[in-house]
Amino acid sequence: MSAYPPGAAFIDGKFGKIEDAKISVLDWGFLRSDATYDVVHVWKGRFFRLDSHLDRFLASAEKLRMKLPYSRAEIASILAELVERTGFEDAYVEMIVTRGVSPTFSRDPRDAVNRFIAFAIPFGWILKPEEREKGLAIAVSEIPRIPPESVDPTVKNYHWLDLVMGMFDAYEQGARTCILTDGQGNITEGPGFNIFVVKDEQAATPKRGVLHGITRHAAILLLEELRVPVETRPVSLAELKDADEVFATSTAGGIMPVTKIGAHTVGDGKMGVMTRGLVDAYWAAHTRGDGWSVAVADIPRVALAAS
Amino acid sequence: MSAYPPGAAFIDGKFGKIEDAKISVLDWGFLRSDATYDVVHVWKGRFFRLDSHLDRFLASAEKLRMKLPYSRAEIASILAELVERTGFEDAYVEMIVTRGVSPTFSRDPRDAVNRFIAFAIPFGWILKPEEREKGLAIAVSEIPRIPPESVDPTVKNYHWLDLVMGMFDAYEQGARTCILTDGQGNITEGPGFNIFVVKDEQAATPKRGVLHGITRHAAILLLEELRVPVETRPVSLAELKDADEVFATSTAGGIMPVTKIGAHTVGDGKMGVMTRGLVDAYWAAHTRGDGWSVAVADIPRVALAAS
Repeated sequence: MSAYPPGAAFIDGKFGKIEDAKISVLDWGFLRSDATYDVVHVWKGRFFRLDSHLDRFLASAEKLRMKLPYSRAEIASILAELVERTGFEDAYVEMIVTRGVSPTFSRDPRDAVNRFIAFAIPFGWILKPEEREKGLAIAVSEIPRIPPESVDPTVKNYHWLDLVMGMFDAYEQGARTCILTDGQGNITEGPGFNIFVVKDEQAATPKRGVLHGITRHAAILLLEELRVPVETRPVSLAELKDADEVFATSTAGGIMPVTKIGAHTVGDGKMGVMTRGLVDAYWAAHTRGDGWSVAVADIPRVALAAS
Repeated sequence: MSAYPPGAAFIDGKFGKIEDAKISVLDWGFLRSDATYDVVHVWKGRFFRLDSHLDRFLASAEKLRMKLPYSRAEIASILAELVERTGFEDAYVEMIVTRGVSPTFSRDPRDAVNRFIAFAIPFGWILKPEEREKGLAIAVSEIPRIPPESVDPTVKNYHWLDLVMGMFDAYEQGARTCILTDGQGNITEGPGFNIFVVKDEQAATPKRGVLHGITRHAAILLLEELRVPVETRPVSLAELKDADEVFATSTAGGIMPVTKIGAHTVGDGKMGVMTRGLVDAYWAAHTRGDGWSVAVADIPRVALAAS
């Protein structure tokens, strides 16, 4: 029916091929999207900001009142082994915990046995490096992002129907992808990425109603190193249109210039100076130590306790 | 790892056992909750309101711009065969279409090959018949339901994290399940059910921000036959507390009296007269023809086109 990318997976306590990684259609992770996940990437054999991804993943599971069947050290070990099994130098590594199924198929989520899944596939790009100069064309959709009062966006989740329908809106406007608003005139995020605006050499990114992206955080840290003032605060649609530069941040592609917003051209329609500086700093950070990156081979391997 | 209920499934064009019904972890139906579904039930060998469920399922798939690989007649035939394979007199029959995966694993939903899945498992109850006199204890959660502007609730979907977290709130309040508000003082729905209030022999149910439940619609039709005025309109939290009777409607249990709302007792804390009349009319309707029910054996069987 479908082709799958090359890759390796860990599911039901065993390593295997990506095409064999399947979950029961009865898992609440599917039937209720009752799951959280995280995606860390590997670049030239090194995990990028693995500790930040593990911190967020463990915090998300706790907020959903799920019990991970593996410790933090075991999860890191599983992720490293997955990457080694693929042989990839550059990879996209996803870890997931689902509510699972209760042995009695009770509807009560407290009865369910939570399920851990992970997989490594080739590195994915929202915008490929060769397209970076041209930049990303986005469209603002009328659909408001699911508000944070309903679903906590800091728990990374699969509630994406608003984003998917926004993507269809964007295609109709000739754009590559979308961003959604908060329904009150401020921008939020797009499918898998955060947004920054730059005006008069100051940067800003939405504070609320968005995923606290690890690449977003890396961008904030790197902008501070570059002595660029950066604020997390509400960012209006007017500011988006008026920006000198706009860029998106995502594990799937890093720092990506946004050069078109609907029919509007951002700045002179090319990657801006500040975005270029940040792109360079971002990729340079992939060989830094001090918590920025760690070699896959240096992750301690631990034996998995029978769960 | 987990036990599964008995049942039969149809996936990737083949019939099989429920425990073998699994989807790829890469399916967008899982990774983006990009899916829609419907659940019809069979009672004493007859589908209840099958045409209404098929109408809604086909409309939902179209709204999500998905292409079903089977026709309406083929889907009905698959559902009937699933029930016959289980041998169940009473069953819960779910049909699902997911975005699927694109052969290139592109992030573009237009490239994906949509996937149809169906399964039949034993009939599920939110409130069992022997608990009906006592009724359901619910709690109102502070979490607002995902608003209809973000995700169209008339497209039956798996965006349930608000409802799941609301269930945890309800457990802490000693209740069995929850209902969510619209964040503006009106009630919406609970996990898998609609809500009706009855005051001075008039019934009302929320119009907006809720699934247009098939059991909700059946209740409206039956109330009209019972000469009870029924309105679909905003229903406030104050009306919920002030109601003479409250009941929930769901394919998973039918008409269910709600006798407690948090610490508040509804009426005299027992199933009310109107609710009892509706429960009786609802189960009596399961042997009616004229679109209300159809014998599983009477569904025309059609050969499935190779898809």
